[in-house]
Amino acid sequence: MSREDNRPGEFELIARHFAPIAGRDGLGLTDDAALLRPARGYELVVTADALVAGMHFFPDDPAGSIARKALAVNLSDLAAKGARPDGFVLTLALPKGWTEDWLAAFAAGLAAVAGEAACPLIGGDTVATTGPLTLSITAFGSVPAGRMVLRSGAKPGDLVLVTGTIGDGALGLRAHGPARPEWVARLSEADRAFLADRYLHPQPRLAFAQALQLHASAAMDVSDGLVGDLGKLLAASRVGAEIDLDAVPLSPAARNAVMADPALAELAWTGGDDYEILCTASEMEFPSLVAAAQAAGLGLACIGRVTAEAGTVRYSEAGKPRSFARGSFVHF
Amino acid sequence: MSREDNRPGEFELIARHFAPIAGRDGLGLTDDAALLRPARGYELVVTADALVAGMHFFPDDPAGSIARKALAVNLSDLAAKGARPDGFVLTLALPKGWTEDWLAAFAAGLAAVAGEAACPLIGGDTVATTGPLTLSITAFGSVPAGRMVLRSGAKPGDLVLVTGTIGDGALGLRAHGPARPEWVARLSEADRAFLADRYLHPQPRLAFAQALQLHASAAMDVSDGLVGDLGKLLAASRVGAEIDLDAVPLSPAARNAVMADPALAELAWTGGDDYEILCTASEMEFPSLVAAAQAAGLGLACIGRVTAEAGTVRYSEAGKPRSFARGSFVHF
Repeated sequence: MSREDNRPGEFELIARHFAPIAGRDGLGLTDDAALLRPARGYELVVTADALVAGMHFFPDDPAGSIARKALAVNLSDLAAKGARPDGFVLTLALPKGWTEDWLAAFAAGLAAVAGEAACPLIGGDTVATTGPLTLSITAFGSVPAGRMVLRSGAKPGDLVLVTGTIGDGALGLRAHGPARPEWVARLSEADRAFLADRYLHPQPRLAFAQALQLHASAAMDVSDGLVGDLGKLLAASRVGAEIDLDAVPLSPAARNAVMADPALAELAWTGGDDYEILCTASEMEFPSLVAAAQAAGLGLACIGRVTAEAGTVRYSEAGKPRSFARGSFVHF
Repeated sequence: MSREDNRPGEFELIARHFAPIAGRDGLGLTDDAALLRPARGYELVVTADALVAGMHFFPDDPAGSIARKALAVNLSDLAAKGARPDGFVLTLALPKGWTEDWLAAFAAGLAAVAGEAACPLIGGDTVATTGPLTLSITAFGSVPAGRMVLRSGAKPGDLVLVTGTIGDGALGLRAHGPARPEWVARLSEADRAFLADRYLHPQPRLAFAQALQLHASAAMDVSDGLVGDLGKLLAASRVGAEIDLDAVPLSPAARNAVMADPALAELAWTGGDDYEILCTASEMEFPSLVAAAQAAGLGLACIGRVTAEAGTVRYSEAGKPRSFARGSFVHF
């Protein structure tokens, strides 16, 4: 149940690769625990995501990309809750045959995202596994007390809004993965690369977090597909919605993919890995959100309206009702 | 990379088995994130441990025992830092073939420890894995600002102290595991069961946490073996120590095992899974720690003294110097 070999031990590895990503409160990762000190009047928002090779990423994805995505998906949750990142904890189960080069590239990817987001590594654990690489990140952010943006605040009459573009992640997974469907060959190399990058390297919408905190009635990030995640937000808020699918923002690359194969529109709406922000806001707050999105260099599309009909989401496409057999993909 | 089948989805599973363990601030585990609100003047202590089936526990250990241990080892870290538990986050990678009965038993074990420690589940993530069951827990506790007990505070002249008894976990692993060494057969059934229970169900020394905060100069929990962990504490404090191995407290069962095979003494001192507290304190503070340990129903043994000789630990057994080829087992 325990082993020793000639590779550097956990202690040495941490010092070499992870300590440079650690903040002051990580105690240089040399103690058993880290400290978090929320500023006076602030609360801590806590979120966690686990990722498993072969389930959430391809085992031979670049180590740096795996690390970037693992941290970015947690930062995306913090952004959706209106929080400013404070730090994160990483537990890493390394499969047999890992190399120090792999770990160095992984640490470099982690450092890049942690640095951009000012979100230091404050602690963690590294273990061996006989199975696939498995990562778990718990990330911390802060919001003024009482200001965390919940899923449950949507009110009838609110607008349903989404940042950026939807579907790139799900299309990018297919464009990047080993089993490339026929439509991928019909995309330009630039479109293919764009979609794969959107899948591999989600961009947490941290620059939009404060605007959400001030102006949104409810929010969450889109990780399991727009249709499914919208269903969760509406359920938490005990409301319904009318959604115009033609208003769902698609990137030029996604539009080209849908032209190549019209069935891909459904994949865009229901597939996962978007890591955009889905939120609701009153009409009065909408202009402030638009301005904040513009300032952050982000699109913000209105795709529909919240209704009082709890549990019912009416989708329309080209003016006709549209329904979905299943809400979303689940990583489970 | 994503799948759906006829078993209940993550959402339903969480509602059914995990929501009852969730605290108020876990938002019933229905949002993307949880909130932590440290009391004014307090800081949050954060610790994380990952456990992999086949590495840290046997895959066919009872589900409830796996859960109890996973949470207890994190609470043990909080106790060693002088913190009072506030909550925890669990990420769970479930292998193929998991059953809902298994999950129910797992949740019941988790609920038992969470309830005893007043440490609610506040969030997490559940995913599928093609590999072994993998768990990661991040636990949170609070201490008055500036009062977290570090590894690095030991001073020359301080006493080296340890709670409870040492070696039961490492012996219990052998007594419990499938490859039972010869000496196990020479133990009474009661001794065997005691040691196995100490391995399977560590008891976090939470009742001793406040005393550590008030009276210890340095502390950590003993998870990777007394000899190795003491080395880490002394290194962090830039001091050395003289240790009397005869003073290391052994349980009656461990003493019987060492009588059956004298080589087991080294296993007791260097093996892991003790989850006792190793701490240092000045002579002046020692009586307060003894009184607190007594009040908590815990033994507290003085096993040596801190010296100014940084990097040097002098062990003696029956009055003679003793050295160790390797410091401790590592789960890596």
